[in-house]
Amino acid sequence: MSLTIKAHIAAHFNLNLRTAKQTKLTDYNVKIRPKPIYHSNQLIAFQPKMSAAVKSASSAIKSSLIEPDGGVLVDLVVPESERGLRTTEAESMPRVKLTKIDLEWVHVISEGWASPLRGFMRENEYLQSLHFNCLRMKDGSIVNMSLPIVLAIDDETKERIGSSTNVALLGPTGDLIGILRSIEIYKHNKEERIARTWGTTAAGLPYVEEVITPAGNWLVGGDLEVLKPIKYNDGLDHYRLSPQQLRKEFDNRQADAIFAFQLRNPIHNGHALLMNDTRRRLLEMGYKNPILLLHPLGGFTKADDVPLDVRMEQHSKVLEDGVLDPETTIVSIFPSPMHYAGRDPAGMGHPTEKRDLYDPDHGKKVLSMALGLEKLNILPFRVAAYDTVEKKMAFFDPSRAKDFLFISGTKMRTFARSGENPPDGFMCPGGWKVLVQYYESLQAEEATQQPAILTS
Amino acid sequence: MSLTIKAHIAAHFNLNLRTAKQTKLTDYNVKIRPKPIYHSNQLIAFQPKMSAAVKSASSAIKSSLIEPDGGVLVDLVVPESERGLRTTEAESMPRVKLTKIDLEWVHVISEGWASPLRGFMRENEYLQSLHFNCLRMKDGSIVNMSLPIVLAIDDETKERIGSSTNVALLGPTGDLIGILRSIEIYKHNKEERIARTWGTTAAGLPYVEEVITPAGNWLVGGDLEVLKPIKYNDGLDHYRLSPQQLRKEFDNRQADAIFAFQLRNPIHNGHALLMNDTRRRLLEMGYKNPILLLHPLGGFTKADDVPLDVRMEQHSKVLEDGVLDPETTIVSIFPSPMHYAGRDPAGMGHPTEKRDLYDPDHGKKVLSMALGLEKLNILPFRVAAYDTVEKKMAFFDPSRAKDFLFISGTKMRTFARSGENPPDGFMCPGGWKVLVQYYESLQAEEATQQPAILTS
Repeated sequence: MSLTIKAHIAAHFNLNLRTAKQTKLTDYNVKIRPKPIYHSNQLIAFQPKMSAAVKSASSAIKSSLIEPDGGVLVDLVVPESERGLRTTEAESMPRVKLTKIDLEWVHVISEGWASPLRGFMRENEYLQSLHFNCLRMKDGSIVNMSLPIVLAIDDETKERIGSSTNVALLGPTGDLIGILRSIEIYKHNKEERIARTWGTTAAGLPYVEEVITPAGNWLVGGDLEVLKPIKYNDGLDHYRLSPQQLRKEFDNRQADAIFAFQLRNPIHNGHALLMNDTRRRLLEMGYKNPILLLHPLGGFTKADDVPLDVRMEQHSKVLEDGVLDPETTIVSIFPSPMHYAGRDPAGMGHPTEKRDLYDPDHGKKVLSMALGLEKLNILPFRVAAYDTVEKKMAFFDPSRAKDFLFISGTKMRTFARSGENPPDGFMCPGGWKVLVQYYESLQAEEATQQPAILTS
Repeated sequence: MSLTIKAHIAAHFNLNLRTAKQTKLTDYNVKIRPKPIYHSNQLIAFQPKMSAAVKSASSAIKSSLIEPDGGVLVDLVVPESERGLRTTEAESMPRVKLTKIDLEWVHVISEGWASPLRGFMRENEYLQSLHFNCLRMKDGSIVNMSLPIVLAIDDETKERIGSSTNVALLGPTGDLIGILRSIEIYKHNKEERIARTWGTTAAGLPYVEEVITPAGNWLVGGDLEVLKPIKYNDGLDHYRLSPQQLRKEFDNRQADAIFAFQLRNPIHNGHALLMNDTRRRLLEMGYKNPILLLHPLGGFTKADDVPLDVRMEQHSKVLEDGVLDPETTIVSIFPSPMHYAGRDPAGMGHPTEKRDLYDPDHGKKVLSMALGLEKLNILPFRVAAYDTVEKKMAFFDPSRAKDFLFISGTKMRTFARSGENPPDGFMCPGGWKVLVQYYESLQAEEATQQPAILTS
């Protein structure tokens, strides 16, 4: 990895984990909002450093930081001084083994990405999230929470927990990760969870197949404590900045506006166009130092997606090649797993039928009306596509629709996999090379594996 | 029909059409709330005639009426003087033919039962209802709206409407019912609608099979105007009081509290126990004249449910027999169709699997946390069941659980159908006789039909 991106990130920050339900706003929205939303698909979210919604360019830019959802940024990492004590305490508790994806959720919750959530959801929170896509706080305020963040256990584990009120959480390799206190165990009605989260129960949804179907029939909620910050030791941990660290970095940079772009795909010039255009618009609105948070998703993605390390390498090239400006960009990894429940304007195929699962327009629409996000101002913008006349990614001009080519993430991966070059100006050459090399290495690997199978 | 119930109903009133999603609260809740909720299963909702939530018995009882959701009680019936004009106008519009159930929704919307809704939902409202079970009003307030109220049309009708902005609505027999103005046509994603409304897409859900599956692939929303109040000419129209008429009657009766019980089943003594106990508790809280609104569902019910006319006759007997007090009871028909998406504490079977579709406790829980119903105070109470020792319906006593018998609506219907008598004290004899006679007439009818089939 030769990531040259400036990863001095920052400031206090929390997100609504809408990872899945309404995602990929790239192509139509810039959000002007005090509380950023983070999507695991692309999103340009604009966070002015002020506590009221920005209504117009004439609004004064204040330096007061935006409050996290629920008023306090959740931080569930135990102070180092207490680590020994808690470890001893945890030794006497029944143990719950986490999957790799459970651990990603522990990461998300523990750093406050899902503030005000202080642990895996109890039934009360689960039902609110499932039915209202929101949590109602004690003071009557409403926080958007469109995905249940839950921990499933099987019958045997439930049996083993018995009437214990606290459990120890072990990582996939057996190391002690943390404690879940004052637990509540309740039924995991998978069918209802899937139907209400995805609007379908058809087979083939990646998160459902990978996470929900194999999971246990019970959910356990409670208050989370994590013994130390979650690390992956994959050479990318320095990119995993917590909301607290991000907030600090925003301050260090003296940003007066933050706009975020979340994605799980390589960055092409259409994405870059949206990001650069957003910065231009923010400057026009009177902001002096808008900073882009480039926020690739670091958790679970489906098998045919480009892996995180390759994407980080690709993003690095995009900044090296000057497609995005390193001076005004912060790159950080968003630790959430991907739900693939999004409403993708590039189209999201139904897993079993020949149609889009959702209406491509609904992401924009549902987000604009989402409860708990009332302070959001959405700046609509045009879809970006490849202009075959200008030979570059450009905003779609409906008056000459036939000149434009829509290249989805899937199509981009197909190009790279087949070694075919995308049209000129689709992606910077350095970034494209990273992808081609990745798919070549994949094919080389497959080639060496096939004979092994034949001779076995 | 010899309905002797005092049907002098009343007062200004509007309900959240939660017909389906969270229903049948009979067995656990009395609600103390300024805005009543009406469920098409049983519910005891208590509407004190005051605009603030009743927090304790010491709260002063004020005579100010409660505001309908959205601030104004919707009434979409055209004044008689304009009827001719509108009829002429409608003649030049493309026509949309309503099904029997569509017409029931027209009834619901036109009288303001679904205030602030002013017509069939446009996509904006549909998506809010589907994703958030709520509508966000322009002033930022939130109104609970847990069911999409939509009008489906087929491809051919959509084609015929073309670019017209208004359509004429014809009843099932071809008569002009009203006008839908400033229409918006959008896709009817049936799978997503079903999954998000019921939490399952399994075959066999009554409303889905009867209404959604056969419906068209498009939805048409718009502003509704109805030429005259909807009537059914079935001898029961005088029981169909609008929210406006109900509000008036509540005033006439000088009620200082209204508690409502909605149901689609015959009334047994367990239901009566809940209703009478609620009145007792309201009197204890200091209310002087609590009035029961007995509110049977008048719209679509599934084929094996007891028909409306028989239920009205049965309800009449319950009042004649003195199980409920006619002096403090108002009987009115709630025109809504039944969605059967409820969370029934008596159990609601999964259509294809051997388990409950929902957790029986979730109705209570989801209702207590429902957005847009924040002013609700819920008084929990115990489940009523048949006490085999005392030989009457009584509150369940867990210390002698084995003495109690739970008799569901399904079981009650099975008793009546088989001519078997239920345990003494389960239902008043007059009411039971109505049911037995109904099932006898049904069997007689079936008997005469069978030979006809054999000889054909």
